[in-house]
Amino acid sequence: MRFMTSSDKPETASAEPTGVAAQDWARAAADPHYRAAVVDLLGALAYGELAAFERLAEDAKLAPSLVDKAELAKMASAEFHHFERLRNRLTEIGEDATQAMEPFVAALDGFHRQTAPSDWLEGLVKAYVGDSIASDFYREVAARLDSDTRELVLAVLDDTGHAGFAVEKVRAAIDADPRVGGRLALWARRLMGEALSQSQRVVADRDALSTMLVGGVADGFDLAEVGRMFSRITEAHTKRMAALGLAA
Amino acid sequence: MRFMTSSDKPETASAEPTGVAAQDWARAAADPHYRAAVVDLLGALAYGELAAFERLAEDAKLAPSLVDKAELAKMASAEFHHFERLRNRLTEIGEDATQAMEPFVAALDGFHRQTAPSDWLEGLVKAYVGDSIASDFYREVAARLDSDTRELVLAVLDDTGHAGFAVEKVRAAIDADPRVGGRLALWARRLMGEALSQSQRVVADRDALSTMLVGGVADGFDLAEVGRMFSRITEAHTKRMAALGLAA
Repeated sequence: MRFMTSSDKPETASAEPTGVAAQDWARAAADPHYRAAVVDLLGALAYGELAAFERLAEDAKLAPSLVDKAELAKMASAEFHHFERLRNRLTEIGEDATQAMEPFVAALDGFHRQTAPSDWLEGLVKAYVGDSIASDFYREVAARLDSDTRELVLAVLDDTGHAGFAVEKVRAAIDADPRVGGRLALWARRLMGEALSQSQRVVADRDALSTMLVGGVADGFDLAEVGRMFSRITEAHTKRMAALGLAA
Repeated sequence: MRFMTSSDKPETASAEPTGVAAQDWARAAADPHYRAAVVDLLGALAYGELAAFERLAEDAKLAPSLVDKAELAKMASAEFHHFERLRNRLTEIGEDATQAMEPFVAALDGFHRQTAPSDWLEGLVKAYVGDSIASDFYREVAARLDSDTRELVLAVLDDTGHAGFAVEKVRAAIDADPRVGGRLALWARRLMGEALSQSQRVVADRDALSTMLVGGVADGFDLAEVGRMFSRITEAHTKRMAALGLAA
């Protein structure tokens, strides 16, 4: 997924950033509600990257070959570097990174505990589905953020090469044994259900973050827009499942 | 540990590299026995780094705080980058990195299986003791290698900051509860025993590597020199245990 460049924008006027999206961090952060929401967002994203590092490193143990193991270790290491950038940014804006991450530890650890893959393929599907949904969500949010935060968020969402790797391995496994497809499709549905239930928990707990999402702070989404965002994310998920050869 | 620079060499003449150590890879590798020994060495080192990545990532799960978790993840990521350099080097000299690593998988996995830490402190002691002994050994060997291989080996042995971190945490834990020291001292002895038994297994299996170590290839050590090397490594281990506050 790429944001449009000026040459392919359909309507230049309406695509120009407005409000907070047209401001840099220094100006946008003058609003304490906006500042609190961004600290929440960076904290959630940072812990998500650290947790992703742990899961990928764990999945590397299930790898059927040394080449696959090294691939997973490479992705884990890339996630760690994303974590580092987010942590450094939190420090740079005068926040305690650990404090910013703490509110999201229970939900993310809960998600990972409820969805521990039982084999290599389940691990691949989980990393692919989980990363993609998280990435879609953060990209949607990024478009509404001040220019400095947006740039950082988009940089850490940069593809780590995982998607192509997972799609190739999962498709090959389904080709070799079509029954694998049914099992993995069920697994992907369970992942999506668990991700939604943990997100709801976070949204219910974190006022600043959810207020930004449903409007009220700067250029936050309104509720109808949140609905459309979720349907875009769900559609993208369905397409990815099809690309994997799975019924969503 | 630093190699001497020209200004602090006691005897310039005798410290000049001779034989293989004075050659670059292109020249030294013309000897097929030397070449095979270096491929073994790089393969063992590469798989050691990949295994270290996995163990550190695993230990990160035992970390008592997010800050500690992030520290371990950082070290794991550094080990992965060392692995990448070694793998790239093997590829560069026309070797299959996976094939070069395979002979060392059983011994290293065996070592790690026999010495799975049961808590955070055991994990720290293991990483510190294991890394240090491996590092001492490779530095001893590095001095005998051609200049290109030596440079790479010394670069990937560069301290990842683990030592200082482990010493600080272990000393603090012993200060807080001196009984911890007895338990960890026993643990360190078990690690050393297991490391020696796995090394013997590797040496018995790998002709090219052990021939280089005990002489016969280029400037290999002679048996007396191997004995002195092991006593230097054991002494350094004893000093490190003392630094940790443990009886060796």
